[in-house]
Amino acid sequence: MGTPSEDNPKTAAEIRKAIRSGAHTGHTAGLAPGYLQCNLAILPEAYALDFLRFCQRNPKPCPVVGVSETGDPMLPTLGHDIDIRTDVPKYRVFRDGALAEEVTDITDLWREDLVTVALGCSFTFENALMRAGIPVRHVEQGRNVPMYRSNIALQPAGRFGGSMVITMRPIPEDRVEDAHKISARYPQAHGAPIATGDPGALGVASLDAPDYGDPVDIRAGEVPVYWACGVTPQNVLLQAKLPLCITHSPGHMLIADVAEDAETTILSTR
Amino acid sequence: MGTPSEDNPKTAAEIRKAIRSGAHTGHTAGLAPGYLQCNLAILPEAYALDFLRFCQRNPKPCPVVGVSETGDPMLPTLGHDIDIRTDVPKYRVFRDGALAEEVTDITDLWREDLVTVALGCSFTFENALMRAGIPVRHVEQGRNVPMYRSNIALQPAGRFGGSMVITMRPIPEDRVEDAHKISARYPQAHGAPIATGDPGALGVASLDAPDYGDPVDIRAGEVPVYWACGVTPQNVLLQAKLPLCITHSPGHMLIADVAEDAETTILSTR
Repeated sequence: MGTPSEDNPKTAAEIRKAIRSGAHTGHTAGLAPGYLQCNLAILPEAYALDFLRFCQRNPKPCPVVGVSETGDPMLPTLGHDIDIRTDVPKYRVFRDGALAEEVTDITDLWREDLVTVALGCSFTFENALMRAGIPVRHVEQGRNVPMYRSNIALQPAGRFGGSMVITMRPIPEDRVEDAHKISARYPQAHGAPIATGDPGALGVASLDAPDYGDPVDIRAGEVPVYWACGVTPQNVLLQAKLPLCITHSPGHMLIADVAEDAETTILSTR
Repeated sequence: MGTPSEDNPKTAAEIRKAIRSGAHTGHTAGLAPGYLQCNLAILPEAYALDFLRFCQRNPKPCPVVGVSETGDPMLPTLGHDIDIRTDVPKYRVFRDGALAEEVTDITDLWREDLVTVALGCSFTFENALMRAGIPVRHVEQGRNVPMYRSNIALQPAGRFGGSMVITMRPIPEDRVEDAHKISARYPQAHGAPIATGDPGALGVASLDAPDYGDPVDIRAGEVPVYWACGVTPQNVLLQAKLPLCITHSPGHMLIADVAEDAETTILSTR
C-alpha cells in the first residue's frame, strides 16, 4: 500500500483536489486511509440496465457502491463535488473492445448518455486484515496483488458474461478462519473468500504465473486464499465490445468521502 | 409468523407449486422456514434503470435480491422454475398511481417489456432475532408489524423518491445492542436499525396509530427500535404514477430457493 508522506494530503476531498488539478496522477494505494476506494465503469445508458443486472447477479466480483444519473458527471452519494471527468488519476478508454488510450482527464470524452457505475475494491478488506494482524503479502513485498483468470462462470446479463478473475493472498493456516470472517463484513468490497487451497480446482495452472499483477511468496504454514477480483468487470466490459467504455486505470481509483467500514456506501444529499 | 401445520408443504419449491396451482392464496409468513422471502416490483423496462438506481441509493428500505431479464417471467438466480406470473399468492396491480385490482395470477397482464425486481424482506432478520431469544412482539401478538411514514427523505432517482416507511419493534433495553448486531448481518433484509427511541424525531406522532399494520404493546423496560421497511418501494412506486406496475400483496411474498442467511442471494445457473 505504501504510506502517504507527511506532504501528502490526508482526506479524500484533498486528494481528489490534487488529482483534479493534475498534481497527482499516480496510483491511490495507501492514500486517504479509512476512505472507500472504487473501481469505475463508465458506459452508454443503452447498456447500463444490463450492466447493473450483471453486477446484481455477480455481487462478489462486482459490488455496486454508486451509480450516476445519465449524463451527469457528479456522484453526490459517494462524495461532495466528485466530478468523475477529472477526479480519478488515470483512465482507460476502450472502443469496440480494444484499449484506445490512457488519459488523466475525460472531460473531452464526456457525453450526455454516459452513466458511471462505481464498484467496491479490495483495499477495504485488506486494510481490515492488516488491522487484525493478518499479513497481506503483496503489500509486504511492495507488489501488485496476483490475479488469475479462473474457471468460475459468471451469471450473464445481456452481452455481459464470462468468467471470474480472482486474487490470491497467502494466509497463515491458523488465521484463515479470521480472514474469512473479517472480509465477510465487507460485502461492498468482495466479501468473504470464494475458495481456499488447490489452484487447479479453480482452473489456475500455476500461482507463480498470474494473469495480471505480480507473483508473491507463499511461506511454510500458509494457505492460498482466493477472493473475487475487481478486474472481473473490466474484463467483462472489454469482452462485451461496447462502442465506448471508460474505466479507471488499475490501481488508480476513485476515492470517495464514504468511510470504508460504513454500513452503506450512500451519503445523504437531502 | 405462525407455525406451518404438519400438512403444509415444507420447502420453498413445494409451497410455490401449491401457490401456482391455486391451492395456496394466503400470506406466506412462517412458511418454508429458512428460505428467503421477497418483496416484488414488476415494472416496464423504460423505468427499470431509474428504479435500480433508486434501490442502489436506498439499500436499507430497498435491498435488491434479484432482477429478471426484460420480458422474461422466470427468476433463475432466485430459484428453480420460478414463474413470477403464477408463483406469488396475491398481486396488486397499479395503473397511473392507483390500485386497479388485486389478483392471484398475472399471466394475462404479462408484457414483453416488463422487468421483475425482487427485494429482501424483514422476515429474514425477525427469524434471526427470535432464534437469539429476542422477542418479536407483533409475532407474539399475532399481528401485522406496525409501519409508519417517517420524515426520513429518500435519495431520489428519476421519478422515484419520497420518504421512508419504517417498522417498529419493541426490544428489551438490554437486548437492543444484540438486535442491532444480529440484523446488521442481513443487509439483504434491511440490515441494522435506522433509529431507536423517540418517534417524534422521525416524524411519527404516535406509535399507537401506525400508518399500516397494527399497533403492538410496548412493555416496561422496552425501547422502540426502528428498521427500514419494504413497504417503502411500494409507496414510492405508487407516487411515481407509472402507467403499469405490479407488486405482491402485503404479506403475500415470493419464496425463493435461496437460504435466508446466504452470503449472496444468487443461485448459480451455470
